[in-house]
Amino acid sequence: MSVFQRVLSLGPRSRGLHEVTSEVAAVVGESPVDSGMCNVFLQHTSASLCINENADPTARGDLEAFLDRLVPENEPYFRHTHEGPDDMPSHIKNVLTETSLAIPVVDGRMALGTWQGIYLWEHRDRATGRRLVVSVW
Amino acid sequence: MSVFQRVLSLGPRSRGLHEVTSEVAAVVGESPVDSGMCNVFLQHTSASLCINENADPTARGDLEAFLDRLVPENEPYFRHTHEGPDDMPSHIKNVLTETSLAIPVVDGRMALGTWQGIYLWEHRDRATGRRLVVSVW
Amino acid sequence: MSVFQRVLSLGPRSRGLHEVTSEVAAVVGESPVDSGMCNVFLQHTSASLCINENADPTARGDLEAFLDRLVPENEPYFRHTHEGPDDMPSHIKNVLTETSLAIPVVDGRMALGTWQGIYLWEHRDRATGRRLVVSVW
Repeated sequence: MSVFQRVLSLGPRSRGLHEVTSEVAAVVGESPVDSGMCNVFLQHTSASLCINENADPTARGDLEAFLDRLVPENEPYFRHTHEGPDDMPSHIKNVLTETSLAIPVVDGRMALGTWQGIYLWEHRDRATGRRLVVSVW
Repeated sequence: MSVFQRVLSLGPRSRGLHEVTSEVAAVVGESPVDSGMCNVFLQHTSASLCINENADPTARGDLEAFLDRLVPENEPYFRHTHEGPDDMPSHIKNVLTETSLAIPVVDGRMALGTWQGIYLWEHRDRATGRRLVVSVW
Repeated sequence: MSVFQRVLSLGPRSRGLHEVTSEVAAVVGESPVDSGMCNVFLQHTSASLCINENADPTARGDLEAFLDRLVPENEPYFRHTHEGPDDMPSHIKNVLTETSLAIPVVDGRMALGTWQGIYLWEHRDRATGRRLVVSVW
């Protein structure tokens, strides 16, 4: 077996959810795989990945608002704060969501449900670019 | 390599955790894979998957109670509410748990630990059926 | 295709995060895979896995402190408590984090980002050993 791999280098994004379904789909389309699996892996610990509803933008807004309340900045017990108030919350948000997503490939395309999109969730206020490794087999 | 895939169409379930280990095990048993991996992927964003203790039903009840408290309905800042009070909490619960599970296959069977079961976690009060894509390689 | 598998039996660890990157890397190095994927699966429901920042120990401490506050012991509604106050919180923490991690393999090594390490997160106060199944393909 061989696994088809590509690195996606994404430019800096603002804090919040950013859909990357089409970027990942392009790698799957480029691969020779007809029936198999796709994995998306994020090489960072202060952003994350998720699959979420991609029809209504208010779902994304509410999701961001919920996680910001669940993981507040400036908790008095945080010690890992040298990169600013969004530093430690970013790592916690990463651990509560995903670093790696696996999606089946059927008939040469990702078998996402009707309303499912793949999102990069940027947790930093001033992030640099992010690298994703997409593997298809 | 080829990946063995089956779609499991599950009928509507009540809100809460429902074990689906035997349904997934049946697909693994049907596959020709002796040593490999199994992936279970849920094509929906308002339910989720998890692996959890399957011996004591009180563990499931406590888990459901915890998540209902962590993600309450009717938060005043929620805007994605047109399908009812359980709409937005369902998407949040999905993101905090799993859409996709990977389990090793050893000697033709899933290598789950003694107390591990695979669960569909229905987050809606009145769900329709749910589709799982099971892949084995 | 064949998948290369090894079981890692880890001795008892104290409650908290314990890096296991080198143990997993040794299995990847032993495998014949040059370009592919690695999966780490934990056969338990009262500990978990995560990928986290491995440079600054304060990030680990803050992460442990956050999860202990998010999932407190002795909640009056918990019923699954026969193994002690850390019993039910352990299962909840497992569900909010990961049981299974997938990491791409590039040039014969795991393609982790610069600051990413693989951690076993022990949630019990007095755990026995833990078993990980590492699969490489």
